[in-house]
Amino acid sequence: METLRVSGTSRPNAIAGAIAALLRSQGQVEIQAIGPAAVNQAVKALAIARGYLVGDHLDLYTQPEFVKLDVHDEERTAVRFFVQGIPAPTAPQG
Amino acid sequence: METLRVSGTSRPNAIAGAIAALLRSQGQVEIQAIGPAAVNQAVKALAIARGYLVGDHLDLYTQPEFVKLDVHDEERTAVRFFVQGIPAPTAPQG
Repeated sequence: METLRVSGTSRPNAIAGAIAALLRSQGQVEIQAIGPAAVNQAVKALAIARGYLVGDHLDLYTQPEFVKLDVHDEERTAVRFFVQGIPAPTAPQG
Repeated sequence: METLRVSGTSRPNAIAGAIAALLRSQGQVEIQAIGPAAVNQAVKALAIARGYLVGDHLDLYTQPEFVKLDVHDEERTAVRFFVQGIPAPTAPQG
């Protein structure tokens, strides 16, 4: 599974495009984010990616978990979002 | 569906407890967060809640979307997390 590393300065639209492309081609993708700003950009990207996938009759869901990562020899706690592509519901939700 | 409103100062463990309780009793819950700090607290709460649900053989997934909310007569963009309880997989995931 491909892993996208998101920072606080990542552009949500660009990440969303990468998420959508990987869900179309592989059905799953993983996102890693360290810190509140990066987590926020990742969530925005996921919300935007759902819009990108509408034309493909696809949607996504995500499951967040904490992981320990080594960054420059220091252990950091990151959030890893497992992202699964799914068929879009036939009727709009909510 | 119940809606939990999360702020940047909400305690993730407390939100996680509320998420887990609502998923056990109702199967679904919605979380609203305005701003990066609140979104981060919501994601941390979701990751923690997954741990709380292990003993119930439950897991969760979430789908984030943008929504417009009126807060003190001003329109704010919030992130709404639709959260769905699901049976936990029988074997641990990768």
